Amino acid sequence: MKTWLNGQPANQLDLSDRGLSYGDGLFETVQIRDGRALLLEQHWARLQSGLARLKFPASSLALLQQDVAALTLPDSGVLKLTLTRGPGGRGYRLPDIAQVSRIVALGPLPDFAGQPAEQGVRVRLCDTRLGLNPLLAGIKHLNRLEQVLARAEWQDAAIAEGLVCDLEGYLAEGTMSNLFWVVEGVLYTPVLDRCGVAGIVRSHLIEVARQAAIRVNEGRYLPTVLHQASEMFICNSLIDIWPVIQLDQQSLEIGSVTRQLQQLLQQEYQL
Amino acid sequence: MKTWLNGQPANQLDLSDRGLSYGDGLFETVQIRDGRALLLEQHWARLQSGLARLKFPASSLALLQQDVAALTLPDSGVLKLTLTRGPGGRGYRLPDIAQVSRIVALGPLPDFAGQPAEQGVRVRLCDTRLGLNPLLAGIKHLNRLEQVLARAEWQDAAIAEGLVCDLEGYLAEGTMSNLFWVVEGVLYTPVLDRCGVAGIVRSHLIEVARQAAIRVNEGRYLPTVLHQASEMFICNSLIDIWPVIQLDQQSLEIGSVTRQLQQLLQQEYQL
Repeated sequence: MKTWLNGQPANQLDLSDRGLSYGDGLFETVQIRDGRALLLEQHWARLQSGLARLKFPASSLALLQQDVAALTLPDSGVLKLTLTRGPGGRGYRLPDIAQVSRIVALGPLPDFAGQPAEQGVRVRLCDTRLGLNPLLAGIKHLNRLEQVLARAEWQDAAIAEGLVCDLEGYLAEGTMSNLFWVVEGVLYTPVLDRCGVAGIVRSHLIEVARQAAIRVNEGRYLPTVLHQASEMFICNSLIDIWPVIQLDQQSLEIGSVTRQLQQLLQQEYQL
Repeated sequence: MKTWLNGQPANQLDLSDRGLSYGDGLFETVQIRDGRALLLEQHWARLQSGLARLKFPASSLALLQQDVAALTLPDSGVLKLTLTRGPGGRGYRLPDIAQVSRIVALGPLPDFAGQPAEQGVRVRLCDTRLGLNPLLAGIKHLNRLEQVLARAEWQDAAIAEGLVCDLEGYLAEGTMSNLFWVVEGVLYTPVLDRCGVAGIVRSHLIEVARQAAIRVNEGRYLPTVLHQASEMFICNSLIDIWPVIQLDQQSLEIGSVTRQLQQLLQQEYQL
């Protein structure tokens, strides 16, 4: 893993940084393939939107983009981009002039055992509930204790992901992914206006599916609706799309909608 | 400000620390007066409870207590103690063996302008709503973006604090303090089972008040109930108790319950 702070090679950050004190910042995780950062424009757009919601200086993004432009990207890997509000400020109060910290990390892709995109994965339903918080819903901020606690529920390496509901019991997402399922040819995914991270691949797939004349419904769904699902998959920027072949006791087939979306996503990546 | 990491003087932290990546940790802010750390046992107890809720190794606290025991405390100041789950783990998953990071910072007390404890302060009601999150409610974790955003609502230095309601509109706390008020001799404070930080001084005052035969009610209250208040105050480990003399357009007197609790708290500190 190679890391840079504000454009310079570094592996440490000031202890007074607000990223550490308050989780006062945002991050993006970008897949590098064939030497290209996939869906990078979409990552910039989400980051920009998050910066506005957290009242960061509007100029914060441009410097990070310069940092990334100066990198020599490997053939494949993971590019993690973090912006924090930097050091200072008295207590929670914003510093008069925020000295945003830009953290860039470049490492290898995780070694996913087996062939999860081809063979599918097992997932479980978590007990941990995500709090209701419209203020922070959707953006990829650094306050991620809920995901840590949900992921801490299981140790079994054969289980690739845990699905998490919100406080009212509605499906929200996976701990590190977004969730889709298919009922009678229609694609469903939880709306993320009160909790969760609106993933880049999730947003992109909704668009891709609609272009392919697949109906997509975003809404509040109880986990019991998953019993009707003929297909299910999870997605994020590193795993792309992993079909779900087992959710706790429920077995699922890998269906044609999942395969079609996998193919369409890979085609998009070539463009 | 002097800082230590894992018992050694340091001012930087590894970029891979989970405190930065996920806000995966807890902190305490302790007042030093006459060379003593005030209510330190209560701070340890809250930290211990937070560590259990976040599934930290049970041994994490003892090492931090050794760090603090080794310090030479100044006559007055602020001792900030932070524990993070340290570096590592793949994504949100807990590291197999957490190498907890212990951060100790020792600095001067903030210079509070005027004599807020004697003269009282002005506060405002914030628009920012705290999310509902029983999983994390009460503990002093590092996921504090809500407090940052609430505090960003005002710039006026004459306003000492902002009161914040939860998503359903019930009073919760101040951005950096807890809230109490008096109606017909009874002390009221919001219950903090779904959001907010259960402050050390808050818990201590509830106990002290009951010992002094003052009735204390914890519950869900809409901000409109504050119109009936004859007294109001905010508290935390650094400010102790600040009477509120103005909430937006509402003026308040500094009453006998507030003065009595201020006196009782100062007496406790002498013990």
